[in-house]
Order: sequence, then structure tokens, then C-alpha cells
Amino acid sequence: MGLEAEPLAAPHPYWPRDLEIRRYIPNDRPTWHSLAFLFSVSAALLTLTWLAAGWRGWTGAPMRTGRRLALCWFAICGFIHGVIEGWFSLYHTDIPGDQSFLSQLWKEYAKGDSRYVIEDNFTVCMETITAWAWGPLSLLTVLAFLQRQPHRYVLQLVVSLGQLYGDVLYFYTEYREGFAHSEMWHPLYFWFYFVFMNALWIVIPSILLLDAWGHLSAAQRALDSVKPKRH
Amino acid sequence: MGLEAEPLAAPHPYWPRDLEIRRYIPNDRPTWHSLAFLFSVSAALLTLTWLAAGWRGWTGAPMRTGRRLALCWFAICGFIHGVIEGWFSLYHTDIPGDQSFLSQLWKEYAKGDSRYVIEDNFTVCMETITAWAWGPLSLLTVLAFLQRQPHRYVLQLVVSLGQLYGDVLYFYTEYREGFAHSEMWHPLYFWFYFVFMNALWIVIPSILLLDAWGHLSAAQRALDSVKPKRH
Repeated sequence: MGLEAEPLAAPHPYWPRDLEIRRYIPNDRPTWHSLAFLFSVSAALLTLTWLAAGWRGWTGAPMRTGRRLALCWFAICGFIHGVIEGWFSLYHTDIPGDQSFLSQLWKEYAKGDSRYVIEDNFTVCMETITAWAWGPLSLLTVLAFLQRQPHRYVLQLVVSLGQLYGDVLYFYTEYREGFAHSEMWHPLYFWFYFVFMNALWIVIPSILLLDAWGHLSAAQRALDSVKPKRH
Repeated sequence: MGLEAEPLAAPHPYWPRDLEIRRYIPNDRPTWHSLAFLFSVSAALLTLTWLAAGWRGWTGAPMRTGRRLALCWFAICGFIHGVIEGWFSLYHTDIPGDQSFLSQLWKEYAKGDSRYVIEDNFTVCMETITAWAWGPLSLLTVLAFLQRQPHRYVLQLVVSLGQLYGDVLYFYTEYREGFAHSEMWHPLYFWFYFVFMNALWIVIPSILLLDAWGHLSAAQRALDSVKPKRH
């Protein structure tokens, strides 16, 4: 920011350093605004969902700690996919030059992955599907468990596999590009934004996928044992 | 082929016409060799799986026509993902200049989508996951149904959703690039190779996903009705 700006664009903090970004305007909010928003809304949703899952009025069925935490996870996913990634899906073209709150959040995150400020084709497609499919389905998963609907584990499996596959592609495409869109080994941008924040969507969906697999197989086994043998 | 070749590369049939393809060598086999291979192996697998699914020695359980056809589909998927897409996953760098049988098949297919001869990053990543995850899991799905294992519908759901998501991304990324990698509206290359052959992996996995959803929800409903209410 102390440098003289080029006539057409302000100097940017993204990698690779010679990346051309049209219409870039630096954030005028401090980074902690974005982080505080993300973590405080997530914490509020966690608290609300934890309480909602503990209320026995829904079905009268008690819910184990692990299950309550899983519902908190899906509520937070509904917010992050639907609102934050939904914003990217709609406004990815404008984000580099826009100063609205969520655009500034994305400009900050893009320091760990500049594909978010260059309308990278795969990133836009994957994020759009994440926002409009896994976002609403995450919220439906919370509802399905609260109401103990018979498709609750199917929804958990669908959302978790969708998140896992999208995230594996996200890391894999960037790995094949030599992690060129981030300052490698940077503690905050590379390790926290890019690696850690996305690794969550590898680890937790994998656990929930196996959990759903176990529950659904057990239900099928129970049904097979009482039903006449017919596929 | 009648044109004078450039010193560095033969003229190629791919789109966009100004695409640079390193080390391209035109096929020396006629197109029908590739098509005959694909369709005759698929037909043989269909016949074998149809017969295997009809044999009652497996579990003594009769199998409905729709279920037998679904198993034929997964056997063919195991072949196409594991062998044909597996080849692409391993040799995508060499294919444009290679004359082995499966490389010639890919050079032919690429007339409908040149991303397969330019090592397009998303295409390589998606095809690698398709080959090494959905390929083996397709064959395990066949086995799971033949042996009536309790996770058979879970496998069907996982494979079908994986195929569907990969294929939606495949079409979506190319749509956002204006279908630049194919000769638009060409009856064979655009409509048959690119649209029809890939639309199969949208339509059939969608049906099988809904089928698995229905079976798994029914199993969970049955279990919920006899088990004490606990999530």
C-alpha cells in the first residue's frame, strides 16, 4: 500500500506475484472483522443447534453428544456454504474491486488461495455446487435429525461425500499447480487459511461418511434379516 | 493428414483450432476400432453380469430385472472407469503423441473434448478420482449385490453420487468456457461423444441415487419402528 500504484490496478498481495488482477482494490476493513464474523456466527449457530438438539420436544428421543455435535457441524456448514460461499458463487466477478463485507472476507481468504480473485473456472463451479446443493442440504440434514426422519443418515452421507469430493478436487487441482496460488509455508495464509480451514472439510466429512455408512448398513442388515430374500 | 506438417507438430483436429498441442501424432487406426472395443467389451460385461445376477446360487434370492440391469451398469462402469479412464489418469501426458490402443481411443474422443489432449488440470484430477475410486467401488457394488451384503445400497449411493458430481463439474466447467474444446453442434463429436456419452452418467446415476435413497430410508424407517427411540 506504500508503493506507487500502477495506473490500472493497485498492487495486490496475491500469489503468484505476477498475477494480473483486474480492478483490484485493497480492503479497508481490518482482517479481524472477517475472522470475528466467521467465528462468532459459527459459535452462535453451534450454541443454538446444541440447545435445539438437546430439546426432547422434537421426537422425545434423547440425542448422544456426538450426534449433537454433528448437527452443530451441519448448521455451521449451512451458514458457510449458503452465505459465504453463496456470496462467492454470485459475485466472484466483482469481488477483487468490491468493498462489501463478504467481498472483503474473500479478498482476505484469497491471500491463501488467489483462485478466488481470478474467477478460476473449477473454483467457481465447485463453489457454486457447494453453495446451492450442499448448503441447503446441510440445513435439511439438521432438520431431518431433529425430526428423526428416516432419510437422516442418507442426507448425512450425501452432504459429507459431496463436501469430501469437492474438497479433494480443491486440494488436488492446486497440488498439481504446485501450490502456485499461495505463499507456500506462510503460517497464516498457507497453513491456516488454505490447509487447515479446508482440511476440516476432509476430516469431518470422512468421519460422518463412515458414521452414516455404519448406521445405514445396520438398518439394511436388520431389514434383510426379517424380510423374505428379495433384492 | 494431407496437409504439410509444421516442423514441430502435425496439424491436429481439435478445438479451439488454434490450440497448441505438443508432440501430436494422428491416429493410424480407424475410428471404428475404438468404438468396437468400447461397445463389444461393454456388451460382453453386460451379458456376463446379467447371467451372473440371474444365478440363484449366490444367496438364493431372486433378483428383479431392474436390479440385474443396475448390476450390468456397475460392471460396465468398473471397466470404463478402471481401464479406459485409468489409462488416461496414468498416461495423460503421453496420449497426444502415443499410438497404443487406448491412447488412440482418447485421441479420438478428444475430438469432442480437447481437454483430454492438453492435460487440462481439472480433467486430470476428476478422471484420476473416477478411475481409482469409482472404478473399484463400481465392481465392489456388483459383488455387494450378488452377495446381498448390508452395505450394497450405500455403495450404490456413494458411486452414483460420485459419478454425478464429477460429471456435473465436467459439463459445468466446459459450459463456462463456452464449449470451446469441441466443434459445437457437430453430430458425432459434440452430440454423441461429448453430450450423449456423458449425459448417460448424469441420467443413470440420478436414477440409481434415488433408488438407493428409497431403499436406505425404508430400511431406516423399519429399524426406527422397532428400536427404542435413540439417535
